[in-house]
Amino acid sequence: MTSPLPLVDDASCCATVTGGVLDAPQAERIARVFKALGDPTRVRLLSLIAASDGGEACICDLTEPVGLTQPTVSHHMGKLVAAGLATREQRGKWAYYRVVPEALDSSARALLSS
Amino acid sequence: MTSPLPLVDDASCCATVTGGVLDAPQAERIARVFKALGDPTRVRLLSLIAASDGGEACICDLTEPVGLTQPTVSHHMGKLVAAGLATREQRGKWAYYRVVPEALDSSARALLSS
Repeated sequence: MTSPLPLVDDASCCATVTGGVLDAPQAERIARVFKALGDPTRVRLLSLIAASDGGEACICDLTEPVGLTQPTVSHHMGKLVAAGLATREQRGKWAYYRVVPEALDSSARALLSS
Repeated sequence: MTSPLPLVDDASCCATVTGGVLDAPQAERIARVFKALGDPTRVRLLSLIAASDGGEACICDLTEPVGLTQPTVSHHMGKLVAAGLATREQRGKWAYYRVVPEALDSSARALLSS
């Protein structure tokens, strides 16, 4: 029996080859985060949640400040959750959202310090 | 002669009223910055420039890594410059670009610490 050859570590290999510049899949992932924020309503929703008591907001408190219906707010929040920028927890009748600041921080860092 | 009444400071007034949440024009401005980054090619271009020697890159060195023609790269860079994320300097035949990291930092801060 022979041992398998050690596998090449893709991450360390490609960081050297590309000089730390983002590759296409990394750029896709990061662009997805920023794209979710490329909409003023979503920017306001995230800002509302970040500024809420305990960093959490009920969807019932988000509709009035942005002047939109609950299904529309829910749609926008779905995009932010899908991008990893917020989390959603259903409690009884209402959905509650929290911001995930690390999602934005790590995307910005990956972009500028690569 | 009477002194004019002290004017109400709109900024401090509204920060209290809204709890520091972004208003519509602020959200528009911030969304514009993120929207420019909601594209994988632009993410890669900014990352390439940030990782270049001296933090500056000639457009002639940007086309090959992203596999696009110079007019297309120039179009994408125009969006990044318009959003304040990069600066452009024409030197002879070529355009040179630099990243403006503060544009992304200040948008992220305004969004999450408001």
